[in-house]
Amino acid sequence: MRYLDKQSIEYIAIGAAFLGTGGGGDPYIGKLMALSAIEKYGPVRLYSVDEIEDEDFFIPSAMMGAPSVLVEKFPKGDEFVKVFQKLAKYLGREKITGTFPMEAGGVNSMIPIVVAAQLNLPLIDCDGMGRAFPELQMVTFNLDGISAAPIAITDEKGNIGIFETIDNKWTERLARTATVEMGASALVSLYPTTGAQIKKSGVHNIVTLSEQIGEIISSKNRDAKDKLEQLLSLTSGYELFQGKITDVIRETKGGFNFGKMNLEGIEMNKEEQMKVYFQNENLLAEKNGQVIAMTPDLICLVDYETLLPVTTESLKYGKRVRVIGLPAHPKWRTEMGIKTVGPRYFGYDYDYAPIEELISKAVASHV
Amino acid sequence: MRYLDKQSIEYIAIGAAFLGTGGGGDPYIGKLMALSAIEKYGPVRLYSVDEIEDEDFFIPSAMMGAPSVLVEKFPKGDEFVKVFQKLAKYLGREKITGTFPMEAGGVNSMIPIVVAAQLNLPLIDCDGMGRAFPELQMVTFNLDGISAAPIAITDEKGNIGIFETIDNKWTERLARTATVEMGASALVSLYPTTGAQIKKSGVHNIVTLSEQIGEIISSKNRDAKDKLEQLLSLTSGYELFQGKITDVIRETKGGFNFGKMNLEGIEMNKEEQMKVYFQNENLLAEKNGQVIAMTPDLICLVDYETLLPVTTESLKYGKRVRVIGLPAHPKWRTEMGIKTVGPRYFGYDYDYAPIEELISKAVASHV
Repeated sequence: MRYLDKQSIEYIAIGAAFLGTGGGGDPYIGKLMALSAIEKYGPVRLYSVDEIEDEDFFIPSAMMGAPSVLVEKFPKGDEFVKVFQKLAKYLGREKITGTFPMEAGGVNSMIPIVVAAQLNLPLIDCDGMGRAFPELQMVTFNLDGISAAPIAITDEKGNIGIFETIDNKWTERLARTATVEMGASALVSLYPTTGAQIKKSGVHNIVTLSEQIGEIISSKNRDAKDKLEQLLSLTSGYELFQGKITDVIRETKGGFNFGKMNLEGIEMNKEEQMKVYFQNENLLAEKNGQVIAMTPDLICLVDYETLLPVTTESLKYGKRVRVIGLPAHPKWRTEMGIKTVGPRYFGYDYDYAPIEELISKAVASHV
Repeated sequence: MRYLDKQSIEYIAIGAAFLGTGGGGDPYIGKLMALSAIEKYGPVRLYSVDEIEDEDFFIPSAMMGAPSVLVEKFPKGDEFVKVFQKLAKYLGREKITGTFPMEAGGVNSMIPIVVAAQLNLPLIDCDGMGRAFPELQMVTFNLDGISAAPIAITDEKGNIGIFETIDNKWTERLARTATVEMGASALVSLYPTTGAQIKKSGVHNIVTLSEQIGEIISSKNRDAKDKLEQLLSLTSGYELFQGKITDVIRETKGGFNFGKMNLEGIEMNKEEQMKVYFQNENLLAEKNGQVIAMTPDLICLVDYETLLPVTTESLKYGKRVRVIGLPAHPKWRTEMGIKTVGPRYFGYDYDYAPIEELISKAVASHV
C-alpha cells in the first residue's frame, strides 16, 4: 500500500492519457477533478493486486460516452459517488472494499480516485483494459465471462438507470442509448468484481505504469529524444511516425467520437504520409498506405516536443506530433481478445497482426 | 369485489380497445393472453376504488412502444410478472396490494389481468388515462405530481432496466430509448401508487366501463344502429363520420406508430371527407377540412357493421368504418391536462376546443 499524493496524480493523469490512445478523456480535466477531491478528503491509498483478498468486493467507476462532450459538461463531482453507491445498494452490499479504473485515460484514470477519496476507500492498481476502448464489453473481465451488469448509470442532472442484461453486448447497447439520451456522456459503475476475479482477469499495475510514464513525460531539462527512448524502453514501444496533422474528419455519433486524421511526415518521415482512424480511441494507423499498427495494439499520439499525450478531441490542424505504437496486453492477443477488439470488430478489413511483425515487415521492405 | 370471468375479459378487451382510440394494442392478442392466464391460475378479483384503503400500495403493468411490433413479438407471458416483481423488490416492498392498468387498450387492459392472475392479486377498477396516450407522462397521476419512476422495463429476451429520474418527461425519454433499443416494444411497471393516490388521481371505473362497452358491441341479433345508440348514450359520444379508408400513411419511428388516414364519406357522409392523424392513438380529426375533434377528446374508429374497434396497426384500404368522438375525462380538460396532452403538445397548431363545442359549431354552420 502506498499513498497517492498530488504529484502522483499529475503523473497518473498524463500517463493514463498516453495509454488512453486518444480516448479516456482530457488529462487536464481529470487531474483537476482528482486534485480537488484529495485536497478536500486527503490522499488516496493505492493497493497492489497482491495485497487484496479473494473475497474482497470492488466496484469500478468510469465515464461513458463521447469524451469531447465531457469537456463541455464538467461533472459537479458528487455523481461519481452517487452512481457507485446506487450500484452497491442495488447489489445489497453494505461494504464495498474499494474501487479501480475500467480503462486508462485522462479522465477515466481519475474518476476512481475521486470516488476513493470521497468514500475513503482504497484504489486498486489494476484496470480492465490496460489502455482505453470505446465499448463496455471491451474489457478483459468480459473475456473471462464476467458480467458488466448490473450497471448503474447517471447524468449531471440527477437521472439514474440500472440495467441487468443477458450479456455484455446488451449492457453496452442499453447503457449506450441511455448515455446518448443523457447528452452523449454519462457516469457509470459496472463490472462489480471480487478480489479473485481481479487477480485472474484484470490488467495489473496499470496505475503504477501510468505514473511512471507520466513521470518520464513530465521530467524537466531533458530533450524529447532522451525522454522518448526511456518511454519506449519502459513500454516496449515503437516510434511509428513524426508528422504534422493536415486533416481531421470528425463526427460525434451514437455517443462516440468517430474520425480519421491525415499526417504529413516531418523530420525522420519527410515526404511520407500517415492516416490514423479512431472511434474515441485510435484504432488503426497506415503509413504510406500500409498498415503499421492496429487494434488492440496501442496507437498513441504525443506532442512532438513535450511528448504530452494528444487526445482525439484535441486534434488540431498543423499540430506536430509523434505517433507511438505499443504492443497490447497479452489478454487482448488471444483469439477471444481479437474477436472482441480486433480490427474486424471495428469494420476494418484486416486480420490482426502484432505491431512487432508489422514493424519488421516494414523495415524489411525498406531494405 | 367481483370476479372477472372469461366473458368479462372478452368484453373488457373489446371495450378497452374502443377507448384506446386506435392504440393500446390489439384486443384479440390481449384477450388470448388474459384468457390463458385465468385458465391456468383462476379468475381475477376486481375491486372498485371505494373498496381499497388509503395505505394500500399498487403497481400498474403495461406495454410500452409501437403496438404494431407487439403483434410480431408476442410475449412469453412471464415478463409481466418479472418486471412487476423487479420493481417491487427495487422499492423494498414485500407486499404489493394489487395492480391496475395504465391505459385503456386491447393489450394494455389485459396485461394487469395476467399479472393479477399469476400473482393472485386484486385488479383495481381504475387506470391513469381513461383512454390511451402514446407517452408515459400522459397520465392523470402526473397531473397531480405523482412520479412515474422508479420504472422497471423488460424485453422478451430477459434484459431489464430500472430508471429513477428528475421528472416524468425524463422517465419517458429514458424508457423510450430503452424500448426502441429493445426492439420498439417493451413491458413496464411504473407509477407505483398508494390507495389514496388512486382515489384522488386515477380514472375510476374504467374496467367496468370497458366491459359495458364491450358487451354492447358484442351483443348478438341487434343492428349496428341500435347498438351504436346505446354506446353513444353510455359514453356521451357522437358519431362523427361514416366512411371508407382510402389512404393510410404510416411510419414506425422512435418507438411509435405515426400516421394519417384519409376517409371518403359513405351513407350519411356521402361526398364528404375526413382526415385522422395519429401517434399510436388517434389525435385529431378533420371533417371537410374543419377540425371536428381533437386530443384529449377520444377519436374512436369502429367497423361500420360490427362496431368492433379498429386499431391504428390494422387500418386497411377500403375498410368501412364509423368514427366516434367522446369527451375526455374532466382531468384532461384542465389547463395542466391540455398542456400535457392537448393538440399543441403533439405539434398541431390549434387551441383545444371541446368536442361538444366543435360539434355544435359544425351543426350551426351546416344550417
